[in-house]
Amino acid sequence: MNGIAPWRERVRVVIFEADTRMGKAFDVALLLAILASVGAVMLDSVASVRAEHGQALDAAEWVFTILFTVEYVLRLACVPVPRRYARSFFGVVDLLAILPTYLSLLMPGAENLLVIRGLRLLRIFRVFKLGRFLGEASILRKALADSRHKVTVFLGTIAILVTILGTAMYLIEGEGNGFTSIPISVYWAVVTMTTVGYGDIAPQTVLGKALATVVMITGYSIIAVPTGIVTAEIVEHAVAAKQVATRSCPSCFSEDHDRDARFCKSCGAELDGGATAS
Amino acid sequence: MNGIAPWRERVRVVIFEADTRMGKAFDVALLLAILASVGAVMLDSVASVRAEHGQALDAAEWVFTILFTVEYVLRLACVPVPRRYARSFFGVVDLLAILPTYLSLLMPGAENLLVIRGLRLLRIFRVFKLGRFLGEASILRKALADSRHKVTVFLGTIAILVTILGTAMYLIEGEGNGFTSIPISVYWAVVTMTTVGYGDIAPQTVLGKALATVVMITGYSIIAVPTGIVTAEIVEHAVAAKQVATRSCPSCFSEDHDRDARFCKSCGAELDGGATAS
Amino acid sequence: MNGIAPWRERVRVVIFEADTRMGKAFDVALLLAILASVGAVMLDSVASVRAEHGQALDAAEWVFTILFTVEYVLRLACVPVPRRYARSFFGVVDLLAILPTYLSLLMPGAENLLVIRGLRLLRIFRVFKLGRFLGEASILRKALADSRHKVTVFLGTIAILVTILGTAMYLIEGEGNGFTSIPISVYWAVVTMTTVGYGDIAPQTVLGKALATVVMITGYSIIAVPTGIVTAEIVEHAVAAKQVATRSCPSCFSEDHDRDARFCKSCGAELDGGATAS
Amino acid sequence: MNGIAPWRERVRVVIFEADTRMGKAFDVALLLAILASVGAVMLDSVASVRAEHGQALDAAEWVFTILFTVEYVLRLACVPVPRRYARSFFGVVDLLAILPTYLSLLMPGAENLLVIRGLRLLRIFRVFKLGRFLGEASILRKALADSRHKVTVFLGTIAILVTILGTAMYLIEGEGNGFTSIPISVYWAVVTMTTVGYGDIAPQTVLGKALATVVMITGYSIIAVPTGIVTAEIVEHAVAAKQVATRSCPSCFSEDHDRDARFCKSCGAELDGGATAS
Repeated sequence: MNGIAPWRERVRVVIFEADTRMGKAFDVALLLAILASVGAVMLDSVASVRAEHGQALDAAEWVFTILFTVEYVLRLACVPVPRRYARSFFGVVDLLAILPTYLSLLMPGAENLLVIRGLRLLRIFRVFKLGRFLGEASILRKALADSRHKVTVFLGTIAILVTILGTAMYLIEGEGNGFTSIPISVYWAVVTMTTVGYGDIAPQTVLGKALATVVMITGYSIIAVPTGIVTAEIVEHAVAAKQVATRSCPSCFSEDHDRDARFCKSCGAELDGGATAS
Repeated sequence: MNGIAPWRERVRVVIFEADTRMGKAFDVALLLAILASVGAVMLDSVASVRAEHGQALDAAEWVFTILFTVEYVLRLACVPVPRRYARSFFGVVDLLAILPTYLSLLMPGAENLLVIRGLRLLRIFRVFKLGRFLGEASILRKALADSRHKVTVFLGTIAILVTILGTAMYLIEGEGNGFTSIPISVYWAVVTMTTVGYGDIAPQTVLGKALATVVMITGYSIIAVPTGIVTAEIVEHAVAAKQVATRSCPSCFSEDHDRDARFCKSCGAELDGGATAS
Repeated sequence: MNGIAPWRERVRVVIFEADTRMGKAFDVALLLAILASVGAVMLDSVASVRAEHGQALDAAEWVFTILFTVEYVLRLACVPVPRRYARSFFGVVDLLAILPTYLSLLMPGAENLLVIRGLRLLRIFRVFKLGRFLGEASILRKALADSRHKVTVFLGTIAILVTILGTAMYLIEGEGNGFTSIPISVYWAVVTMTTVGYGDIAPQTVLGKALATVVMITGYSIIAVPTGIVTAEIVEHAVAAKQVATRSCPSCFSEDHDRDARFCKSCGAELDGGATAS
Repeated sequence: MNGIAPWRERVRVVIFEADTRMGKAFDVALLLAILASVGAVMLDSVASVRAEHGQALDAAEWVFTILFTVEYVLRLACVPVPRRYARSFFGVVDLLAILPTYLSLLMPGAENLLVIRGLRLLRIFRVFKLGRFLGEASILRKALADSRHKVTVFLGTIAILVTILGTAMYLIEGEGNGFTSIPISVYWAVVTMTTVGYGDIAPQTVLGKALATVVMITGYSIIAVPTGIVTAEIVEHAVAAKQVATRSCPSCFSEDHDRDARFCKSCGAELDGGATAS
């Protein structure tokens, strides 16, 4: 960062860092602007509000878009490697958050895509109590990542189950009772097994109700499986996070020794602060 | 509490303590009165009951209000520092529990706010088996407090997810199928993702049903996350509560002895502070 | 059991024990008869079935009732202390299972109460693989009993929450939108917070939908709490059940020593089979 | 496998093994064909699609059926013991996946049974990252198998509960409000207790709504039980899987060493079978 013009560095600190007073003020103002602009897009979709305040909301939309465009250009201008920012997750989101307004000049309706600005709110975790929140999120992320395979097996099994049960309902109920096709019946099976239960389609025949009972009990019972998987992972990670602060070997620097260990499990050297530090 | 008039002290013991016979009788009578008055408010809102017993219920309401007003004044009068009671959680609730009746003289309808008296029932935990119940509640409270950050991250992510999925449904289904605005569509996404599923709004198009399937499966799966978080916390707290009394051996410094252990399990030396520290 | 007539003892073994061949055959026949009679009662309530087979079902009902009456009298006759059986859980259920038919002579409709016979099916756990099933059930029962207090606190809090949220909805939505009284609104709050969501009552106003969102998210989140409580209990009990088989002290016969303990934690005597049995 | 003709062995490796390039290509092609054929059956059930592309879908169905028939015959021909394959789970599924098309020549409508082909997708776990996925599935399977008895007790209790609560609702609500028979009322109880809540049947009377509240709270609370059971099992299995490799020290006989430990953590002696058993 040596060859950078001083004003770029100063702007970068304000925009990208949250530790200085200016930086924090900027971040909070940005979050409020994002919230306001997402709120404006949502209100604009309500017919009665649009009829009354349509022009004001359109104006607000353009003001926010221009502000965010200036911010995006500044971000590009002040980072050392603009390409890296442009390709990062937040860089892409920042771009997507301004494009729909310009697109709406060509395609009416595109302005609804502006709610993608909501993703920018993810910055909120970076602004307030950064470390702690990210730490929590990272334990969650790790637990979810580690249970990925088990959950995939689980969801795969559910998908096959739902297809077969949905088809069975299609054959049992027939087209007269709302189960007009296999995809619709599979949709019903998903609605039922996840215990959502809209009620727009519901079995009418005795046999159909009997099968629906099976689907419901199944859904109610297997909800236990992902819960069990994720819980077990989180318990394990929480335990691991606690043990992480154990001692390192003074001779080979290996870590992860048990609390009651007296000798290094990797090289056999005596550990300091062991249970019987005689 | 020395300078207090004796009658105040005697009243205070009856009203605030639950250990004496008089105090317990007072508390039980109070709880019954609260239950009866909340029941009266609820019944009063049922048209057919109000038509028949409206006057009796109004009378009951005034009787309860006057009783509770006397009680409130007595509480203020007998505590050493009235201001502290008036500002405490229960002090505020006690005041809010009598205000609506007086307000209803000015604003008809305010008497419905009387159900806030329900909060007074929280005293029930204090009256019956105080210690144990509060102990349980405090483990729960601690577990919930410790998982606060993780749950905040979780709810924040859900909020952003629901906004984006709701908008997608609005764009897919259009205004003809009940998804009349983005806020309504976000409301639908919440109804679906929490597996409530009223069915007042439901997708009609094929693409909408496909997206709804994704929303349901997501909701069904991520219900595992808060469960996992809270469970892990409770397991940890329960374990910690057990290990809190861990002592180390005075002779070999080994740890991890059971709470009821009198002798070291590693070297057989007597432990301090054992169950029978004779 | 000495002074009992031999035939009574023989009948008792057949009726009450499940280990002999006769006893097991009797139990299986009984279970089938109970299932058949419950099925008959259920079918009898279906209008189309009753129209066609009403008389046959009535006849079956009387046959089953007379059979069960004979069985009940035999049970009373062959146990050493009839009063104790008559007052036991199964004794009361056995009586309740025959009374409704006789009652239906006086009060038509009472025969529907016969489904209480379903409770007799609880015997099934006694007949098949008795020990194991009861063992499992008893761990469950213990876990549930131990989490009773926490669950009571939890349900109490929910009850107060639901009352206040339901009243708020009544005030917000007004009587026009189905929220016709506070009890109905509280019912709606329960339907929503438990994620059942019938959809027979649903908020229509913007503010009502916003509050409904809060209710749903709350319900979806706090489902984690009882799960966490019960899970933690079961984990603890399962762990305790595993450690129960540890060694007993050869000198003071105390139990419950850790697996790696070398000395008795109660008296300090050396344990056999310890980790370092030097 | 010595006496087998070389071409049979070569075909067997391609069809049954997933490790060679040819074998993997075959498996992937097969999975795509299964997905395409299941998709064709589902689309064929949609009236509008059938009207337009009916003949093409019928043709595709026959093409897939003939392909799968050839594959089935080849599988039978190339395994050493055809009978064993024919009777295995996948052998039966492979047969069931082709029969309906031939059956549909005799019974129109039988072709809907083709979705049973979906079960063939279970092969997917075998093709991609075989070991890991199967390993995950086997921990799940073991946890579920071990919790079988507890879950059976749980489901049995629910079945009895639902029968009795459903009958109570039938007696309370009467036939006018949709609770037309006991089986229908039991069906309603299942819909409610599993928190699905279609809303096609809902209580109308005050007493009915009160009982429904009890059913909902019960359902909402006891969902914790299977979750607790399964979670406890998974935690136990995960812990057991970690401890399975526990070795004891050859010098001091202490146990509980980590899997990657080379030296005893208690006395520092070298362990057998360590990570680097040089």
